[in-house]
Amino acid sequence: MSAPRVRIVSTGSEILQGLYPDTNAQGLSRRLFDAGFRVVGHAAAPDDAKLIRSAVEAAALNADLVVMTGGLGPTEDDVNRDVIAALYGCGLRFDEEADRLMRVRFAARGIPMPERNRVQAMIPEPAVTLQNLWGTAPGFVLPKTGRLAALCALPGPPNEWRPMFEAALAPDAPVDGLFPQRPKLEVHTIHVALTPESTLNEVLSDLFAPVDGIDVTILASRGVIRLRIIGQDNPDGVRARRDEVLRRIGPEIVFGEGPADLSPAQALLDLFRERGLTLATAESCTGGWVAKSITDLPGSSAMLHAGWVTYANEAKIRDLRVPAELIAAHGAVSEPVARAMAEGARTVAGTNYAVAVTGIAGPDGGTAEKPVGTVWFACAGPEGTSTLCRLFRGDRDSIRQWATNQAIELTRRAVLGIPQTQYLGGANPRFLGA
Amino acid sequence: MSAPRVRIVSTGSEILQGLYPDTNAQGLSRRLFDAGFRVVGHAAAPDDAKLIRSAVEAAALNADLVVMTGGLGPTEDDVNRDVIAALYGCGLRFDEEADRLMRVRFAARGIPMPERNRVQAMIPEPAVTLQNLWGTAPGFVLPKTGRLAALCALPGPPNEWRPMFEAALAPDAPVDGLFPQRPKLEVHTIHVALTPESTLNEVLSDLFAPVDGIDVTILASRGVIRLRIIGQDNPDGVRARRDEVLRRIGPEIVFGEGPADLSPAQALLDLFRERGLTLATAESCTGGWVAKSITDLPGSSAMLHAGWVTYANEAKIRDLRVPAELIAAHGAVSEPVARAMAEGARTVAGTNYAVAVTGIAGPDGGTAEKPVGTVWFACAGPEGTSTLCRLFRGDRDSIRQWATNQAIELTRRAVLGIPQTQYLGGANPRFLGA
Repeated sequence: MSAPRVRIVSTGSEILQGLYPDTNAQGLSRRLFDAGFRVVGHAAAPDDAKLIRSAVEAAALNADLVVMTGGLGPTEDDVNRDVIAALYGCGLRFDEEADRLMRVRFAARGIPMPERNRVQAMIPEPAVTLQNLWGTAPGFVLPKTGRLAALCALPGPPNEWRPMFEAALAPDAPVDGLFPQRPKLEVHTIHVALTPESTLNEVLSDLFAPVDGIDVTILASRGVIRLRIIGQDNPDGVRARRDEVLRRIGPEIVFGEGPADLSPAQALLDLFRERGLTLATAESCTGGWVAKSITDLPGSSAMLHAGWVTYANEAKIRDLRVPAELIAAHGAVSEPVARAMAEGARTVAGTNYAVAVTGIAGPDGGTAEKPVGTVWFACAGPEGTSTLCRLFRGDRDSIRQWATNQAIELTRRAVLGIPQTQYLGGANPRFLGA
Repeated sequence: MSAPRVRIVSTGSEILQGLYPDTNAQGLSRRLFDAGFRVVGHAAAPDDAKLIRSAVEAAALNADLVVMTGGLGPTEDDVNRDVIAALYGCGLRFDEEADRLMRVRFAARGIPMPERNRVQAMIPEPAVTLQNLWGTAPGFVLPKTGRLAALCALPGPPNEWRPMFEAALAPDAPVDGLFPQRPKLEVHTIHVALTPESTLNEVLSDLFAPVDGIDVTILASRGVIRLRIIGQDNPDGVRARRDEVLRRIGPEIVFGEGPADLSPAQALLDLFRERGLTLATAESCTGGWVAKSITDLPGSSAMLHAGWVTYANEAKIRDLRVPAELIAAHGAVSEPVARAMAEGARTVAGTNYAVAVTGIAGPDGGTAEKPVGTVWFACAGPEGTSTLCRLFRGDRDSIRQWATNQAIELTRRAVLGIPQTQYLGGANPRFLGA
């Protein structure tokens, strides 16, 4: 079975003005891809009935399914309901349940529902409603009509459309019969840390050509690489391909497998939680990014006890007990200072582990000996302290992101006893980035 | 003169698979908007000649200018050159200068240019080349041809297309005559901190309707609101509208004016630099985000001397000298503890100012008295310590982002002597967020 073709239409003038990127199209594409659809086009249109209509019509004539977000609110800008009904040649009906849910929502906030919100309960006649338990605007799914594809309309806010779309995609959903039939995909993700994409490309190149309908794709982003193995009704083939990939790249660089969006910080939190361990952070050039990445995650307070941003040398000396002589002798960006920062943080915080980062993020501060992008890392733990030096390419933001991911990887390896220099290709790849 | 209509076409299978959001379309839209164009549609197509052709054709038949990114590389996936030449009915010519620049580039890296890169110097016959000094693939601009709009093709990487497009938009650029004529816009941005969008909407509602061709638009994002005033050949009108907006909202909540992308952290860094001041941060629920926001910026090391992430109470007591009794009596999320954190951080770090954040980011940890989203702030400085409590709505990420922006705004006000409770609407708006 081949994958049904989907087109996504996002609406909202702010997208066309470039006020933010169209993350709805991205999130929907990812979800649709995993669900066995093939997204063949994105389109975005401003809040203008004529422009929206032409975008939806073009999409609906050239796909098996159209998914739209936005334009279902209560204001005059929100024209999607009317545009869709006109295009599909149907009227609108009043959905009692949608109206009831909105009133419950307003009542919970202690305010009566404004009269104008009532229009949000209007749904195209032949559509099945997707009730919204996370906001006011319900969505809906229209069946294929003549030459026009099936259409799924969702509200704009991601915290609303995500669970609604998830429910709509469930095999037993009332709208399931309206969606085009699709193959069942198995997707297995291998998460790789701190490896140059070009090295992975060389090692895996012959696996990137689809065999037995199994695809391997690679996505690299500043120190984190996702290898996705995608099969169709062939779980054994996916497993075999996964084993082959792992055999070639080795287990050391893999920080996780399974869920598509696992972050290095989440993998580390899971590991620390499982073992009941605690961490302290001592950051210079990453300036709090390591601590932020960890505290982004619910439940991180059990793991991260303390963090220091020791930008100034005095702070390294005062707060982390780094000997002033060390800094004078080796400079703040050096192995001895990274080591002293990590060991000092561990002693002061009394945690099982402490990780330290000190480097030159740029754009200024580089020298011939220590160019911009030079970063020293150390992780102190019960078994001792391991250190590593890296030279990252790229701009300040890129160097800091790579360094943050390296600090987390260094800590993971310290806990698991994986050698700090064992990266793909054997040697320690000093030069990464951009 | 009305704004010429532009359609943006992004190409790349990874966009359609949802691997990342289409930030090229966003960046181009913003730049085009400021340059007097009106972007009426975005489209994205995978690396498939047929799908790209139909997307470009539809765009070129319904706009005055098409801007494309991606698909100009040396591999077989890179079909844009050929697709565009076929659609516009022209051949390709070899651009000697583009070839020379590529060879120089490879030579600088000490490697000969691979033969396959030569194809990147092929340009549609009637097009003017946009040379690429930041990567290999040149871009080009094709004049309007029959019913097909003028077309500007750019490479995918932002660090390449940005300066190339900037050069192409310059009034004296060789391609200027190929672009549609456009009105000259004045854009003035007012940056507002920690104000509910709904309050601004009420206060400014009658200004949102365009008068004398002057538009006022509002974009809110987690504690930061951008008010953009856009006029056409009418700088006096823009200035008058700007004065009227400021008169209504008051100067207190404005953290900056002018550049479109000014961040609260950048405005604070500018202020501290101008006055030669130093800062320390003491963060609990924001977990390093305040320090990260500041250290994101080049030159921040002169301002931010030290930061603490004191997630555990012991860290607050040990590192920031918060009396244990205070935490026992009032809880870690309280005015006295926020105050003690800020004053302790200032004393220990010896900085001019110190800002502290302690709150409940959720999803767990809330109580009836202190629900999730409750955050106490304090800023200690030479004039004393100011404090503020907020209740933010939303998820963990949203609460932490709002809190980060509030901490920065608290610090700005402490330095400038602006009352900490003077927000739009008079009273202290406790309930913000989402």
